[in-house]
Amino acid sequence: MSKQQKNDFSEKLMVSADGQLKASQKIPQIARPFVSEKALKYLDIVEKFVEEECIPADAVFQQQIGDSTAERFSGHPAIIEDLKKRARELGLWNMFLPKNHFKEGAGFSNLEYGLMAEYLGKSRTASEATNCAAPDTGNMEVLAKYGTQAQKDKWLKPLLEGEIRSAFLMTEPDVASSDATNITLDIRREGNEYVLNGSKWWSSGAGDPRCKIYITMGKTDKNNPSPYKQQSVVLVPADTPGITIHRMLGVFGYDDAPHGHGHIFFKNVRVPLENIVLGEGRGFEIIQGRLGPGRIHHAMRSIGAAEKALELFVARVNDPRKKAFGKLLNEHGVMVERIARSRVEIDSARLSVLNAAITIDTKDAKFALKEIAEAKILVPTMALTVIDRAIQAYGGAGVSQDTPLANMYAQGRTMRIVDGPDEVHLLQLGRNENKRGKFLLDRLARQKKKSEELAAKHGMKLRDVLQLDRVVSEKAKL
Amino acid sequence: MSKQQKNDFSEKLMVSADGQLKASQKIPQIARPFVSEKALKYLDIVEKFVEEECIPADAVFQQQIGDSTAERFSGHPAIIEDLKKRARELGLWNMFLPKNHFKEGAGFSNLEYGLMAEYLGKSRTASEATNCAAPDTGNMEVLAKYGTQAQKDKWLKPLLEGEIRSAFLMTEPDVASSDATNITLDIRREGNEYVLNGSKWWSSGAGDPRCKIYITMGKTDKNNPSPYKQQSVVLVPADTPGITIHRMLGVFGYDDAPHGHGHIFFKNVRVPLENIVLGEGRGFEIIQGRLGPGRIHHAMRSIGAAEKALELFVARVNDPRKKAFGKLLNEHGVMVERIARSRVEIDSARLSVLNAAITIDTKDAKFALKEIAEAKILVPTMALTVIDRAIQAYGGAGVSQDTPLANMYAQGRTMRIVDGPDEVHLLQLGRNENKRGKFLLDRLARQKKKSEELAAKHGMKLRDVLQLDRVVSEKAKL
Amino acid sequence: MSKQQKNDFSEKLMVSADGQLKASQKIPQIARPFVSEKALKYLDIVEKFVEEECIPADAVFQQQIGDSTAERFSGHPAIIEDLKKRARELGLWNMFLPKNHFKEGAGFSNLEYGLMAEYLGKSRTASEATNCAAPDTGNMEVLAKYGTQAQKDKWLKPLLEGEIRSAFLMTEPDVASSDATNITLDIRREGNEYVLNGSKWWSSGAGDPRCKIYITMGKTDKNNPSPYKQQSVVLVPADTPGITIHRMLGVFGYDDAPHGHGHIFFKNVRVPLENIVLGEGRGFEIIQGRLGPGRIHHAMRSIGAAEKALELFVARVNDPRKKAFGKLLNEHGVMVERIARSRVEIDSARLSVLNAAITIDTKDAKFALKEIAEAKILVPTMALTVIDRAIQAYGGAGVSQDTPLANMYAQGRTMRIVDGPDEVHLLQLGRNENKRGKFLLDRLARQKKKSEELAAKHGMKLRDVLQLDRVVSEKAKL
Amino acid sequence: MSKQQKNDFSEKLMVSADGQLKASQKIPQIARPFVSEKALKYLDIVEKFVEEECIPADAVFQQQIGDSTAERFSGHPAIIEDLKKRARELGLWNMFLPKNHFKEGAGFSNLEYGLMAEYLGKSRTASEATNCAAPDTGNMEVLAKYGTQAQKDKWLKPLLEGEIRSAFLMTEPDVASSDATNITLDIRREGNEYVLNGSKWWSSGAGDPRCKIYITMGKTDKNNPSPYKQQSVVLVPADTPGITIHRMLGVFGYDDAPHGHGHIFFKNVRVPLENIVLGEGRGFEIIQGRLGPGRIHHAMRSIGAAEKALELFVARVNDPRKKAFGKLLNEHGVMVERIARSRVEIDSARLSVLNAAITIDTKDAKFALKEIAEAKILVPTMALTVIDRAIQAYGGAGVSQDTPLANMYAQGRTMRIVDGPDEVHLLQLGRNENKRGKFLLDRLARQKKKSEELAAKHGMKLRDVLQLDRVVSEKAKL
Repeated sequence: MSKQQKNDFSEKLMVSADGQLKASQKIPQIARPFVSEKALKYLDIVEKFVEEECIPADAVFQQQIGDSTAERFSGHPAIIEDLKKRARELGLWNMFLPKNHFKEGAGFSNLEYGLMAEYLGKSRTASEATNCAAPDTGNMEVLAKYGTQAQKDKWLKPLLEGEIRSAFLMTEPDVASSDATNITLDIRREGNEYVLNGSKWWSSGAGDPRCKIYITMGKTDKNNPSPYKQQSVVLVPADTPGITIHRMLGVFGYDDAPHGHGHIFFKNVRVPLENIVLGEGRGFEIIQGRLGPGRIHHAMRSIGAAEKALELFVARVNDPRKKAFGKLLNEHGVMVERIARSRVEIDSARLSVLNAAITIDTKDAKFALKEIAEAKILVPTMALTVIDRAIQAYGGAGVSQDTPLANMYAQGRTMRIVDGPDEVHLLQLGRNENKRGKFLLDRLARQKKKSEELAAKHGMKLRDVLQLDRVVSEKAKL
Repeated sequence: MSKQQKNDFSEKLMVSADGQLKASQKIPQIARPFVSEKALKYLDIVEKFVEEECIPADAVFQQQIGDSTAERFSGHPAIIEDLKKRARELGLWNMFLPKNHFKEGAGFSNLEYGLMAEYLGKSRTASEATNCAAPDTGNMEVLAKYGTQAQKDKWLKPLLEGEIRSAFLMTEPDVASSDATNITLDIRREGNEYVLNGSKWWSSGAGDPRCKIYITMGKTDKNNPSPYKQQSVVLVPADTPGITIHRMLGVFGYDDAPHGHGHIFFKNVRVPLENIVLGEGRGFEIIQGRLGPGRIHHAMRSIGAAEKALELFVARVNDPRKKAFGKLLNEHGVMVERIARSRVEIDSARLSVLNAAITIDTKDAKFALKEIAEAKILVPTMALTVIDRAIQAYGGAGVSQDTPLANMYAQGRTMRIVDGPDEVHLLQLGRNENKRGKFLLDRLARQKKKSEELAAKHGMKLRDVLQLDRVVSEKAKL
Repeated sequence: MSKQQKNDFSEKLMVSADGQLKASQKIPQIARPFVSEKALKYLDIVEKFVEEECIPADAVFQQQIGDSTAERFSGHPAIIEDLKKRARELGLWNMFLPKNHFKEGAGFSNLEYGLMAEYLGKSRTASEATNCAAPDTGNMEVLAKYGTQAQKDKWLKPLLEGEIRSAFLMTEPDVASSDATNITLDIRREGNEYVLNGSKWWSSGAGDPRCKIYITMGKTDKNNPSPYKQQSVVLVPADTPGITIHRMLGVFGYDDAPHGHGHIFFKNVRVPLENIVLGEGRGFEIIQGRLGPGRIHHAMRSIGAAEKALELFVARVNDPRKKAFGKLLNEHGVMVERIARSRVEIDSARLSVLNAAITIDTKDAKFALKEIAEAKILVPTMALTVIDRAIQAYGGAGVSQDTPLANMYAQGRTMRIVDGPDEVHLLQLGRNENKRGKFLLDRLARQKKKSEELAAKHGMKLRDVLQLDRVVSEKAKL
Repeated sequence: MSKQQKNDFSEKLMVSADGQLKASQKIPQIARPFVSEKALKYLDIVEKFVEEECIPADAVFQQQIGDSTAERFSGHPAIIEDLKKRARELGLWNMFLPKNHFKEGAGFSNLEYGLMAEYLGKSRTASEATNCAAPDTGNMEVLAKYGTQAQKDKWLKPLLEGEIRSAFLMTEPDVASSDATNITLDIRREGNEYVLNGSKWWSSGAGDPRCKIYITMGKTDKNNPSPYKQQSVVLVPADTPGITIHRMLGVFGYDDAPHGHGHIFFKNVRVPLENIVLGEGRGFEIIQGRLGPGRIHHAMRSIGAAEKALELFVARVNDPRKKAFGKLLNEHGVMVERIARSRVEIDSARLSVLNAAITIDTKDAKFALKEIAEAKILVPTMALTVIDRAIQAYGGAGVSQDTPLANMYAQGRTMRIVDGPDEVHLLQLGRNENKRGKFLLDRLARQKKKSEELAAKHGMKLRDVLQLDRVVSEKAKL
């Protein structure tokens, strides 16, 4: 490329370099028709809030958590309440509740909130500050959608206000929980109570002393002939007798305090019958409704993490104090190419998520299963790749607490596992694609027949097309 | 995922399985607002034409070309004229000329034609059949945009009618032609003629006996202080004395006859002065205007090739005659996963190209430089990966003439080279991203300062954030 | 790394830079104890012969083959006989026959010939010039090992003399031939003759007019209860009535003439009973004995191809006429890193093959199954990666006939398919590794028990090790 | 592959399945000539010690470390002393000191100890238990090689006895320390003392209360015209006034207590002049001598980690309690293939390290620079890939403290950074390879000339070889 071309190239891109453009200006052209004026405005507010208030608060939050395990899971970093107050002032509260389903939310579509979630994903504190943190978001959706008025009053209201937090207890240590029919926690009806026995782990958020409610999945009817009617969801207050937090699980060496990931024992835990959600045997239905938007949120936050890693990467290679082999890192072609690849990969993955969000918005989550699965598969691996490149550019600082990169990597790594490991989604997509087999074999047969007709018309006999036949099943030809 | 989930998943996807849905129904939701009713209709006609007429004709075309080199570059497979006639009947002609710029075209946007180009890319013959084959498309754009009326009458008209074909002569064997300022072909004005001396290669299309016009770039003013004012473009009839086609170049073992890639010598080749396009010294301007849409076309055809490879892959694993280790290939998890990854990668790359096309349509090609570069980098490698997986599933048939896969691979491999190799585009993108360096270092400095203020407010002194400082340049802090 | 370090680094490596050191000096230290003085000497002769005589002859050979298909498969490039004469003068003849098994060979071990085969792999003509070309090598091994004296006199002798060539006919178009039990060619005994009916493809070498003998696998006893006793191998002269070469198969666009890959029909082809090899029902045994060393040969030639690609890559980036962005390519860090990665990958893959060869030599081919499989999986993908990088550095010249790179890529690509596709070997290795499952689960249980004892001894109760338990099967604990 | 083949394959491999064979029996054939009988015997003792005593002790060690930061860096897990006692009884002590250089060691070559280090790498405690833990190993080498008798008596003796531990202080936070000439810690001579000022980080081992001595690199002569004569190494007792451990750095979320990675401030730290090692200005020489064997140790321990990850992976897929989609994981082809790829990659990388070790043993570390660099580049990425696959197979357990996998990943990740990041080694290798450029261009020119001569002799004129010319520099042709 010539200098002139470079100039043209640069001039335009300079204009759109992230530093100079606001979030609303960086939305891919293809997604613009789906974003309202209001969302554009709030998107910029989110960006500004995250960059100017949340990211600076992250370090303070980190240090306020404390040192020993007991300390880390008993306190509540004060700064988070400052941020929450500020977020509410800015109107940044509960943006996640999609406008076409919930009146309680801020009135944004899944796409619009998705765009915001990218920025929230750049900070450790931003999601909680805006009351958009998992698993509360999914839990609030469940309560809003399926809860009784009493349940809503008691739990949804304080959740929406950010007064309490919640956990969703589904995964169990002794079964392959990616298949929800394997769940074993026993829920027995006894008089006007349910009695729960069993254990759960990866109960994220259960470490926080403000976590007051466990939305708990178990089996009320393990002999039901339908494996999808055995499960129920009940609301279990965190302080119910019989519950023990056995221990907290780590992710790479991080405890994610105070949130944390609990390993919890249930021993004769009793809750009133009215704590059932939607009714006995309807647990499956509930968790299914919970999955789509949550995956969009996770994916967009991961994209935000990748963008942040790339920003740190770019900052590093421009740090005038870091010269290697007599040149700034930004003059090393290998670094420049990695930065470019990161840009291409992030932008492409983002389009995949935005398309999934739009498919949910314009159709519904069920219609969008393929698109959601694609984004779910694509984004975490992309984010890990980008973050890992940034780690490498930082060397020692990259793996330590001096950058957020190693922590982002650890978080990102779990994204290939939670809500179903990559392999499950790939298997589904692959099997689905395979359903086209018969159609495709039939079409190949028709095309071959037509080829032979055309050849005959042109006075020829085909030589190699015969072999094409070999991809055509005998059956298909009939 | 449970059986119930699977069923839901499948049911929906079955509906959208490619075999059952028409092209117009498979457009990603995110792109729909940009597609007119007319385009939807024609898209389905294109798909039907390609699948039912062009693909069956490919084998006939292949065999009609002939055997010896001389034979292969002197004839014209008769079937292509049948297809052209049929395409015109269907209204599928010159769809590539973007509606907002050219009245001669079919009235589609870059996005709309891009969607069609994907289907054209599934067949060897379809692009030429619809008069949408490179390099004629770009050449027609040049003539329509910059040609004089006389030039248009003489060359554009028969090109638009598909009566002749054309070549674009830019690349030279002895210089790094990815930098157009390196071009050396000498164009000397002598009386009322230009005299051309030099050599060109990769002159694609020059092998076809119907190729009548070479749009040729050279230097009229090699001493001009501006390296972007030295080049000119002149129209050189293919039969002008002094032109020798030295030889035809192969791509892997393919000669791409009759089209071909010529290595051409110019020895005192004389054309009248009126054959200059736009004026002396404006060659650079012309080639720049030529690049954007062409890259979209290439990319979308490559996506079509990838889709076709995936279809062949799926057909293969469903072929009841091919059992390995006692199971059909579609029961082998490794195959299923590769199919799924291919689906994810194709869909994601397509979104990247569609976004680039939309950016051209809603802004312009210059504004879309980043998006075009991203698609240019992303698509060929993706397509090669998908095609290679299909080759592996076919084994011997995959590398031979019995499937189009090896040929598609060879074509795809050139896509990482033509119009600038990957590395050039990555370098540009990377350097551009690097321009954010100062802004990012400044913002990090501001964020650190704010962190310290927040810590002070909370009565703390930060421990680890000090090191964050180390990514902040001294200079940036000033 | 400092300048001083660099100097030390360089000084040493300069000494070992390939240009300055002979082949015998470049053998990895780890392999040296296995190489005799004689082999060292001949290895250097091979290198010199390949670089100074064969590689220059390649271009002549290529052009002597001719143009039309008929021509390409009927002639015999004269230069190959010059080379063969020269090779015999140098004592470079039949080096492939391992010394511990065959008196007819040149007296080298598999390792020693392997080292030579790497150099042969750098040239199109060198293997045939030294009578070490596939499939003759494997065929000669079969005849030497299993043939009767009459068979040896008739076929082995002229093969060893390089007077005729041969083909091995096993693969069939309509079955998954990677499982030899699927072979269907019918061999019926009728009087004192065998009558053969069926078809074969990928019969490599069958295109050469000098190919006089087809070593043909088929079924003599398709009802034998043992699927490994049904097959027999018979010697079929190429000119036997009833044989038709239906067509030649291409590899990518290459026809590999005059050698070629035949698709052959057998219609009542009759050979005398004495043409059976080893006896009826012993076909399986024969092909098994044929596989090990052949895979070493292929792998080492592929390593030679990769080395040649790397040499061309290095030459390109040092070509003073090719500047991009104002710098020689060798100053572009991206290119330098790719060169370095290629060096690491080639050297590591070579060690894998050498270890497999040594395992055959010190144990036997059966003992070396794992090592052979590892090399078989590792080398082709490595070679393709290295060759592809070189192609990219050459741009247009890389995909065309102006470098051997594209042809090497096509050849290399088949290596992932022939003698069993990667997937088959991976499956075998993976299943074998899985056999350790029970042992490993048992050991984990023992380790856990010991952990608990140690903890008790130290007055502790383990917290997290409990979960380790979960990888231990209940069964294993019993 | 047929069942028969599979059986043959399996039978042999069963024999060599790791569970059934001892470490000494698993040494690759290619390496056997280099391993003494004594080493074979001790290798098996190492394996047994690691599997039966160290790995069970790991969990106890982990829990004995404690909870709060203060606690974690002040104690000394009692179990490590039990292991050390046991190791000495078994004769497993200081095996790392290579026999040809040090009389103090156990009498093994670098290769032999390398084979043992693989097994040490499977346990958290084994290296320290056998007094073979970094950085003590390199430090003991420095003292043994360069120390005065007084220095040896005071520091080497207790280190060899495992009574104290040590740190090597080289890396600094504010410079690109991969270039040792950038080091800035000031060492000023004042009377009969050196006075040190500056800061160091990644001072591994400095967290351990038993760490008594810092081998410290700084600058005594920053104005020396030679950048390699400015550095000196001095011995600084850890309790010298003026030293502050500012904080401990984490690796991902792990603090690696009690060992740890210190960030240390030096403020007017005074040591007597006799604490200099080797003499002023000789620091560079010392660190160079320290690098080779250490990289072998790291690499072999990483290979051990990869083997352990693969064992855990295999155990997981054979766990009868973990079924997904109705099948054990070991029936999922995707898992089986990943296991197989891991086997291939581990075995190949091991050969690379063994070859480097042998090159050091048979030549010396300087001669082995290329081989060491190759192993240094190859192993960490391989290990990370294998560990990551195992993590994925475990899901939540893989990222948590319930398996050692996440910790192994974090450790492995640092291996791409310490002792020079990948990029530095690749750059060196690449530049070295580039030195062949002129030779290769010259040879290409000679080959081309010979081609033309041969063609002439055969009465031809070459067509395509002309272009080969284009890779040959004009200069080279002269």
